[in-house]
Amino acid sequence: MYKIAFDVMGADNGSEVAVQSASEFLKSRKELYLVLVGDKKEIEESLRKFPIDENRFEIFETSEFIDMNGSIMDIRRKKDSSMVRALEMLKDKKVDAMITGGNSAAFIAGSHFILGELNGITRPGFMPTLPTAVDNKLTLLLDVGANLEADIEDIIGYAKMANIYSKNVLKVENPSVAQLNIGEEKSKGTLLQKEIYKELEADKNINFYGNLEARDILAGKVDIIVTDGYTGNMCLKAFEGASKILMTEIKAQLYKTIFTKLKALTLKKSFDNVSKKFDYKNHSGAILLGVDGIAFKAHGSSDVKSFKATLRMTCEAIENDVLNKIKKEIK
Amino acid sequence: MYKIAFDVMGADNGSEVAVQSASEFLKSRKELYLVLVGDKKEIEESLRKFPIDENRFEIFETSEFIDMNGSIMDIRRKKDSSMVRALEMLKDKKVDAMITGGNSAAFIAGSHFILGELNGITRPGFMPTLPTAVDNKLTLLLDVGANLEADIEDIIGYAKMANIYSKNVLKVENPSVAQLNIGEEKSKGTLLQKEIYKELEADKNINFYGNLEARDILAGKVDIIVTDGYTGNMCLKAFEGASKILMTEIKAQLYKTIFTKLKALTLKKSFDNVSKKFDYKNHSGAILLGVDGIAFKAHGSSDVKSFKATLRMTCEAIENDVLNKIKKEIK
Repeated sequence: MYKIAFDVMGADNGSEVAVQSASEFLKSRKELYLVLVGDKKEIEESLRKFPIDENRFEIFETSEFIDMNGSIMDIRRKKDSSMVRALEMLKDKKVDAMITGGNSAAFIAGSHFILGELNGITRPGFMPTLPTAVDNKLTLLLDVGANLEADIEDIIGYAKMANIYSKNVLKVENPSVAQLNIGEEKSKGTLLQKEIYKELEADKNINFYGNLEARDILAGKVDIIVTDGYTGNMCLKAFEGASKILMTEIKAQLYKTIFTKLKALTLKKSFDNVSKKFDYKNHSGAILLGVDGIAFKAHGSSDVKSFKATLRMTCEAIENDVLNKIKKEIK
Repeated sequence: MYKIAFDVMGADNGSEVAVQSASEFLKSRKELYLVLVGDKKEIEESLRKFPIDENRFEIFETSEFIDMNGSIMDIRRKKDSSMVRALEMLKDKKVDAMITGGNSAAFIAGSHFILGELNGITRPGFMPTLPTAVDNKLTLLLDVGANLEADIEDIIGYAKMANIYSKNVLKVENPSVAQLNIGEEKSKGTLLQKEIYKELEADKNINFYGNLEARDILAGKVDIIVTDGYTGNMCLKAFEGASKILMTEIKAQLYKTIFTKLKALTLKKSFDNVSKKFDYKNHSGAILLGVDGIAFKAHGSSDVKSFKATLRMTCEAIENDVLNKIKKEIK
């Protein structure tokens, strides 16, 4: 039996979606016990629609929460917020992990103040798991925006931590690690990137692939891609924008005439398969790697499917004891 | 009558593609005269297949060229290369503009050494013209990789130069200028980005839109997007990768069964329309903005369509006297 503190407040779609996700997900994970953190009335109301066996959960009542428009200052101001309480439970080892769909900036600040960083880590990184063009191949990308900047130690730390994660959680035998760069050659990029290249190449515990260009992030060429949070964030958003615009245009073209509309409908399954393959919701949620605790951020606009994916990923991190393995490696 | 020095060497597909493009394009531009710079034998051979009226061109023979694997050192080493000679012709005002499809790094270094920068500009920027989701709306993005870094003066310079370009070449009345950033709020991004935000906001000659996220680069929301070359390069490549992967997957899904294959073929026109809309080849080529001369880089892998687009864009820059207008503005 293990426990997760689930901050059900503060995400875009309200607490009911979070409670529904908890209710549905618990059925698939017998060893999981959830602490639902937030407004008691709201949670109880949602539980009437989406009941949970009383032996599988408890409610931790809080009087406030940090909303999407909140700031990092709220971590200090809102002592009884669901996010702060969930982080404190993790800090006090009352739970094995925590999840929030709330304000990212507050979550990063709160993790810093309450959990603290692991030995040798100064800038933790958000690490999403990305679907790729290769069937069943997932790629870990970090940092995607927990920090805007990163120095050599940060990037090497990302590589080491993601390496343990990939081996233990994704069960990749010898994960390949690439540095995101504007060109593949060793000589490419900033001075910092050239230094990082040398260090990763020399590290015997890292299976270094070399530099990887942004066009290949989703190509499934490597298991892990390390970069600074500014660049990682830009690339993720560029992908998001390109996909959205392309899919919209393709659909607009297909539906332009009734003639092709009929045909397009019969082709719907094909499109659905593509969407499914690249659906980030199946792997939604990013672990904040480098803090002293298993802390996951669910997407702010999470629906039930997304929240359940985050719950699953959090369980897998606990089940594979990834935090202790990381601590052992980077100490 | 105006003249362009066209370095026909050094691109991926050989000089014949360049000569063919010249031959075809000259028919559409009566006032244009071309200096084809490169290997005389090769050019003459291509001209037998793709003839040009002898009053419309001349060959400038060079004994060498800088290939794709060349380095910036080749600018010093290969004095009689087609790229160096084309740049020198521009410097000496024997032509009104130059085009090369050759090595980018050498081109940037050569432009610096031979043409020099405009007053007040220390880091020129590559500026491609991007098709967007909005019909007939084009967006200028710079820098996309001429330099990896940019300070406040560079970015403000990009905004000013692109502003003149947009007004005069693309005929946009009051071009909107956005700063690429990881969030839209004024408070987002690095210290540098916050400073740039303030400067652009305060500049009365700039119609400042605010920050724009990478997901919206192709959305057609603004006329000009300014960023450092590292970020611009990453985003362009992320778009490229996302588009390629998505289109490949959609096609793979559609062709999976003979049943859908037949239907897919009838839908080919729809797909072609999408490809056409976002086909960068229609706007292929990037001006190196900030050097003292109209110097265009054609894509290294240019085909005839791409080279013709670069030729058209170069003509438009000359016809609209954009360099002198920029000089007047930023002096």
